[in-house]
Amino acid sequence: MNFKTSRRVEFRDTDTAGIVHFSNFFAYMEQTEHAFLREIGQPLIGEVDGKRVSWPRVAANCNYRSAIQFEQIIDIEMSVTKLGTKSIIYAFTITRDGTLVADGTLTAVCCEIEPGKKPKSIGIPAEFAAAVKPYLAESID
Amino acid sequence: MNFKTSRRVEFRDTDTAGIVHFSNFFAYMEQTEHAFLREIGQPLIGEVDGKRVSWPRVAANCNYRSAIQFEQIIDIEMSVTKLGTKSIIYAFTITRDGTLVADGTLTAVCCEIEPGKKPKSIGIPAEFAAAVKPYLAESID
Amino acid sequence: MNFKTSRRVEFRDTDTAGIVHFSNFFAYMEQTEHAFLREIGQPLIGEVDGKRVSWPRVAANCNYRSAIQFEQIIDIEMSVTKLGTKSIIYAFTITRDGTLVADGTLTAVCCEIEPGKKPKSIGIPAEFAAAVKPYLAESID
Amino acid sequence: MNFKTSRRVEFRDTDTAGIVHFSNFFAYMEQTEHAFLREIGQPLIGEVDGKRVSWPRVAANCNYRSAIQFEQIIDIEMSVTKLGTKSIIYAFTITRDGTLVADGTLTAVCCEIEPGKKPKSIGIPAEFAAAVKPYLAESID
Repeated sequence: MNFKTSRRVEFRDTDTAGIVHFSNFFAYMEQTEHAFLREIGQPLIGEVDGKRVSWPRVAANCNYRSAIQFEQIIDIEMSVTKLGTKSIIYAFTITRDGTLVADGTLTAVCCEIEPGKKPKSIGIPAEFAAAVKPYLAESID
Repeated sequence: MNFKTSRRVEFRDTDTAGIVHFSNFFAYMEQTEHAFLREIGQPLIGEVDGKRVSWPRVAANCNYRSAIQFEQIIDIEMSVTKLGTKSIIYAFTITRDGTLVADGTLTAVCCEIEPGKKPKSIGIPAEFAAAVKPYLAESID
Repeated sequence: MNFKTSRRVEFRDTDTAGIVHFSNFFAYMEQTEHAFLREIGQPLIGEVDGKRVSWPRVAANCNYRSAIQFEQIIDIEMSVTKLGTKSIIYAFTITRDGTLVADGTLTAVCCEIEPGKKPKSIGIPAEFAAAVKPYLAESID
Repeated sequence: MNFKTSRRVEFRDTDTAGIVHFSNFFAYMEQTEHAFLREIGQPLIGEVDGKRVSWPRVAANCNYRSAIQFEQIIDIEMSVTKLGTKSIIYAFTITRDGTLVADGTLTAVCCEIEPGKKPKSIGIPAEFAAAVKPYLAESID
């Protein structure tokens, strides 16, 4: 099952080339991830056994297929392509009126967050994994 | 005495109009303020009597005189136009090759910062005030 | 008559202080202005007598009343406080659950835009003025 | 031969997690690319045979190794890992005090840019290729 959202390109997202600056596609992916977490009732910054748990990124990539401009509306479709013991990979497809705009992935690692310390990777909580499962792409390990 | 810095316009700062997006002038002002704080040896987020102290903004304004574009170098000159008991007003003049680009102000309030609480305004520490004094514009109350 | 919109704070809009970076309030105001222009059927970049016409900013200001954080939903209410012969002033009030977050204004000037030339101010087209009139605040000149 | 630059993390680049927002690493890479183009005397937007030529991105990726925070200084080292007939791949390594922060690549394609048309890929001009050659990583095709 895929998660879908859409948004309109804001003026601040564009650059001198008259198109959305390539770095902003990552913000669009992230905003979709966060909308997904709200949908499945899992907070971005949660608490497990009294400890603050969140999802630092370890990798991000994007392929740009066609440009988008101010005021255009884009559709973003997301699936979970990998649910590991400690990490998760989200895959995104961005389209406009059915035309492919970009696709990419975000890889996040479940971590304990303590102020002043490096994030420490931990096992993904069972409740989170259960909530994500319906969105896990079947054909991919 | 004025504090001066300069920077080059980055591509990400521009928009579809081919100029620096107006909101980024505030980031340019802030970056100058932070460079100034480093110059006078005062941290943006400090500690007074064991409490975290910082400078939330209460007002910001900017007048736009001429546009700037990708790769252009701008000069930013800053003075302190008011040093109150709890607040400070920084004034900025941005130029390019001597031509006025923009001018504006930032007003910040000295506050105790506690996680989960509203910032609470406090008196500006004497050490901070002493460090700022040489930059205080004389002609303005 | 006021124009209203709302939006959710995105993660990219926040800063190390855990709140929306003050410069992003200007992007929020602008996005409301652009939604307004769509509502009244006036393009941001239009054409008058075969010439490209748009609305460079000459002034922007904001007063910050209370901080907002990731995922919070804000309401933005906009009115037109001045409709001059060449310029327009938009006033914005941002609230969260009825609590004042910020208020500010944007002043834009109607200009002919030619690549490689400075924008040249022109009279606001009658059609634009007529479309804006219902939103003009009555009590303010 | 590698191209090197460094910069200081600005407050606007950080997020609620107290670190640089992951999308901004792409702006850091791009700023390095642009500094490199200035270094070798090649404009980002040039002219070949009377046509506007620039470098739209087709891919971007980044691996995040350790977080960076406000005011920290980072070093960015760039090499050209592929110089094709129409495209170029830049590889970046970001460090802080010698510690790896992130690495990633940008892939750009040489294109003719005409307003209102899709960018059309063209052969990389010989002059550009000659200027880039000294920075081409030897061990990689």
